[in-house]
Amino acid sequence: MYLAKVYVTLKPTVNDPQGLTIKGGLHTLGFNSVESVRAGKYLQIKLDGSDRADAEEQVREMCQKLLANPIIEDFSFELEEIQA
Amino acid sequence: MYLAKVYVTLKPTVNDPQGLTIKGGLHTLGFNSVESVRAGKYLQIKLDGSDRADAEEQVREMCQKLLANPIIEDFSFELEEIQA
Repeated sequence: MYLAKVYVTLKPTVNDPQGLTIKGGLHTLGFNSVESVRAGKYLQIKLDGSDRADAEEQVREMCQKLLANPIIEDFSFELEEIQA
Repeated sequence: MYLAKVYVTLKPTVNDPQGLTIKGGLHTLGFNSVESVRAGKYLQIKLDGSDRADAEEQVREMCQKLLANPIIEDFSFELEEIQA
């Protein structure tokens, strides 16, 4: 059994209204040292795989097909083996 | 200048309809090896700080005050020094 930690972020050139709103909120709260905020998604996926390479390939495919929108988003992930 | 990578996740006992929906979508696409999906937020925050301890303290406070809902969410973060 593997745990995949998947990070989906907007590409750097894509506008991020959610991040801008969070930045505004932080400034309002007095955190004026904040220069920028980018908002993304963090997914924890438990999956079976015959080995690490197989699990990695599956997660990459999931990202490409469903988890990330390749037009506007990038993704990366880490894989760790866990007890079932 | 520091880059904080903030991970906000639902506490393990909290229902996660978004994660369940993603899991359903993955199964529909044929990824039957997926056992569970938990959905969270991933934030990249650039901020100034007099030193690492100061930046860390600021990010912890941001999480407690705005970025995470302490009733239902946990947070963790990493800090790395970057060029301004």
